[in-house]
Amino acid sequence: MSIENGKSISLKELAALCGGRVVGDENVKVSSIASLDVAKEGELTFLTGHKNFDENAKHLKDEKIAAVITSEDLPELPIPSIRLKNPHLGLIAALNFFRKEIKISYHIHPTAYVSETAKVASDAIIGPNAVVEDGAVIGEKAHIEGCAYVGRNASVGANSHIYPGVRVLDYCVVGSNCIIHSNTVIGSDGYGFAQANGEHIKVPQLGNVVIEDNVEIGACVTIDRSTMESTVIGEGTKTDNQIHIAHNVQIGKKCLLVAQVGISGGAKLGNYVVMAGKTGCIGHVKIGDGSTILACGIVTNNVPDKSYVSGYPAKPHQEELRIKGSLRKLPDLIKRVRDLENKLNEQK
Amino acid sequence: MSIENGKSISLKELAALCGGRVVGDENVKVSSIASLDVAKEGELTFLTGHKNFDENAKHLKDEKIAAVITSEDLPELPIPSIRLKNPHLGLIAALNFFRKEIKISYHIHPTAYVSETAKVASDAIIGPNAVVEDGAVIGEKAHIEGCAYVGRNASVGANSHIYPGVRVLDYCVVGSNCIIHSNTVIGSDGYGFAQANGEHIKVPQLGNVVIEDNVEIGACVTIDRSTMESTVIGEGTKTDNQIHIAHNVQIGKKCLLVAQVGISGGAKLGNYVVMAGKTGCIGHVKIGDGSTILACGIVTNNVPDKSYVSGYPAKPHQEELRIKGSLRKLPDLIKRVRDLENKLNEQK
Amino acid sequence: MSIENGKSISLKELAALCGGRVVGDENVKVSSIASLDVAKEGELTFLTGHKNFDENAKHLKDEKIAAVITSEDLPELPIPSIRLKNPHLGLIAALNFFRKEIKISYHIHPTAYVSETAKVASDAIIGPNAVVEDGAVIGEKAHIEGCAYVGRNASVGANSHIYPGVRVLDYCVVGSNCIIHSNTVIGSDGYGFAQANGEHIKVPQLGNVVIEDNVEIGACVTIDRSTMESTVIGEGTKTDNQIHIAHNVQIGKKCLLVAQVGISGGAKLGNYVVMAGKTGCIGHVKIGDGSTILACGIVTNNVPDKSYVSGYPAKPHQEELRIKGSLRKLPDLIKRVRDLENKLNEQK
Repeated sequence: MSIENGKSISLKELAALCGGRVVGDENVKVSSIASLDVAKEGELTFLTGHKNFDENAKHLKDEKIAAVITSEDLPELPIPSIRLKNPHLGLIAALNFFRKEIKISYHIHPTAYVSETAKVASDAIIGPNAVVEDGAVIGEKAHIEGCAYVGRNASVGANSHIYPGVRVLDYCVVGSNCIIHSNTVIGSDGYGFAQANGEHIKVPQLGNVVIEDNVEIGACVTIDRSTMESTVIGEGTKTDNQIHIAHNVQIGKKCLLVAQVGISGGAKLGNYVVMAGKTGCIGHVKIGDGSTILACGIVTNNVPDKSYVSGYPAKPHQEELRIKGSLRKLPDLIKRVRDLENKLNEQK
Repeated sequence: MSIENGKSISLKELAALCGGRVVGDENVKVSSIASLDVAKEGELTFLTGHKNFDENAKHLKDEKIAAVITSEDLPELPIPSIRLKNPHLGLIAALNFFRKEIKISYHIHPTAYVSETAKVASDAIIGPNAVVEDGAVIGEKAHIEGCAYVGRNASVGANSHIYPGVRVLDYCVVGSNCIIHSNTVIGSDGYGFAQANGEHIKVPQLGNVVIEDNVEIGACVTIDRSTMESTVIGEGTKTDNQIHIAHNVQIGKKCLLVAQVGISGGAKLGNYVVMAGKTGCIGHVKIGDGSTILACGIVTNNVPDKSYVSGYPAKPHQEELRIKGSLRKLPDLIKRVRDLENKLNEQK
Repeated sequence: MSIENGKSISLKELAALCGGRVVGDENVKVSSIASLDVAKEGELTFLTGHKNFDENAKHLKDEKIAAVITSEDLPELPIPSIRLKNPHLGLIAALNFFRKEIKISYHIHPTAYVSETAKVASDAIIGPNAVVEDGAVIGEKAHIEGCAYVGRNASVGANSHIYPGVRVLDYCVVGSNCIIHSNTVIGSDGYGFAQANGEHIKVPQLGNVVIEDNVEIGACVTIDRSTMESTVIGEGTKTDNQIHIAHNVQIGKKCLLVAQVGISGGAKLGNYVVMAGKTGCIGHVKIGDGSTILACGIVTNNVPDKSYVSGYPAKPHQEELRIKGSLRKLPDLIKRVRDLENKLNEQK
């Protein structure tokens, strides 16, 4: 399907929206956008990267595609283009323009339950069968979708979007301009037990989770509440799906956590940390600002700022690469050592 | 507990249902089935595999078990049996026969919310506190269980079973004869951001997810919607629980994805691909038809048809096995090389 | 935030609650508790471990913290202390004392749906928009929170706490004094298919899940029902978040399963088994009593009692450590072997 909403826009207008530069006829109008391989005659599309450039250029012309958002550094194209240093900003502008708006006519849906002691901003939206418990606070223009749950004394900031099935549990705080995707749990108990007489005795988990402004959390993520104080997700951090963040964790600002990451209790991430898919760290480690943990890496010791690590235990990526490369030679190496031993024995 | 529902069946009748052959008295009647180690006198059970055959045969007789569904290639047994080349087809027939049917007397439960603009087939069932949003379409005999959510303009095909807590989000499509297990999310936003001035700027995710017919999706799975166009799960594919499927992924027909798999954005799986537990792949790779990725394998490059790979990076399984085998010799190898060095030095 | 609820307690009283011993003024009263690094004047705090002892002792005095719960084996401190051999038991007592109690005035919330054929104890609580289906049984003082779902003929034992969004599906059994965290699924279908003519034919999953008493299950966990009989989680076992437990699995008593563990079908864990984060096991393996699987370990063969294993395949941890240590020497080893080969060739 193409992305369209009945509106059209000229290349000149779209370039103005995204800070791009039109090459070719700026009066060309487009009313839908689609990916390069499926875009049809008259549509807008998006091209980035030098790979298969000639083939792609021919395709644009052959398919009579109307215009293309692309990078400043790509060569001339046979159709009009909007050029940007970062063409994704052009794509974002186009997608926002062609986005279908959802129209919702209610404030609190009649099937939602909102406690009498909750405070819901007059322009917030509470969807069907959603629950807002005692003492909860819902900010201006916040949208709590159907089947979502906001617990006792929890709060959701202005303009935040809480998708169906999200659980923001008691006393937890979601900032402004946040997006929390479906079936994510904010504020489950931390995993803490004391051992006594062969029993696992629960350490009560009485803190909360604080999600700062401009955070996006993926679907089916779990973020545990702190034992005391707060588990914190810093401003502007974005997480993918199926991530586990344990109690007492402190995540800095503008981090990126990719799918299936697991962060153990008390770990502390700096700002601009990137943890790729299936990575993890043990409890109480510190990962410095601007560090990247590559896919499947497991951090077992503190990592300084701007580290670039992989493997288990995580080590400088170049070292891990050397080890992985060497491994393929290992079976042969064993034979070579045996040969050497035989030769030396023969010498005697 | 044994599986029973008050009905009984003769071996002759059951064999006819599953295409099996009765060995022994075909008039024996059974009214329940249980696993070999817990089946009681007069029950039906299931036996496959040559392992511990003599012991199992004795057990069947000693426990006075009435009959056994088993494989054509097993030796003679002391009790009546139904024989099939693939005995699991006999088990399936027996389980379907003894299954307790759930009786539901409502069409749309009074506590469910169904938008006036949704279209629900007259024989579909919408459970308690479920939500069906504006413009959604629910097919014939589809069952949307309690607490499930079907979003705006989403659709669920005929005979599909949507378990409690599933979220089929806006514009997503679930085909016919599908099963989606509890708390799975279909259509969360893809994880896409552009970097500008130190900010992560969201790329709107305006496509959808299309789940073709006869697909089964496990519990707590997340399938992200495409940026434009569709993330596709092909006909007859079956997934286990806790799987992450990123945006723009294309999964072929009749694939099997085992628990905790992670598939990165834009990856393309052919037909009959098997990804075992905890496997993954990086973005945009292609995995050929009929390939198998063994447990914990991470695919980092395109994989041709009928590959059988494991490890990280995924490589032919035989090579990975040789490396894993060699690894256990590595600590000793280091000593042996030191010995060789010493000997050579002594020679000088 | 500090943990407080308006009540205060003397050290003497608190020591009596937890079996501790007061060192210093036993009449000191405290009305809140906070972690060491954020505790303020007059508060109670918690200190364990010898690390940075002198610095911590100075901090306690400088910040005028009122008292500290600590270990018997730590040296003298400049403020009053409650000493215990296991100081976590003191922390637990204090947290339980300062816990804010939630007051709920309803029995069955008016927005909940409870089937006429369900049996709900008169002092149980059913939250807003929760669902309790036909034939379900809810025990004394059990709390089914908002948006939770208890299926047909399922049961939840006395004093158990079922958090928002949990799905206890048809016929499943949750014992007494259990805690099930949000969006966890108890009783999704096991992943079982027979192959015939290129089709994956579903093996009906007609058993259930039995969760014994005193079990705690984390958030977004999935536990599949058995094909026949029961998947069992033994008494006193505690699991973290995002765990997958497949069908027919038998987990013993008082096991600890940390986040993102995956347990394949038919596996059998003894009592007091610990599986650390991101571990897993293949189908049908047995893991003996008191065994520990260290982080990311994958068990591929039966493991005897009291094993301490890591790696993939899981092996004795000392062996895995030797291999991991040797790996860092491997790239250099390859050079050394080449040198040896050259030297031997020169000799000829």
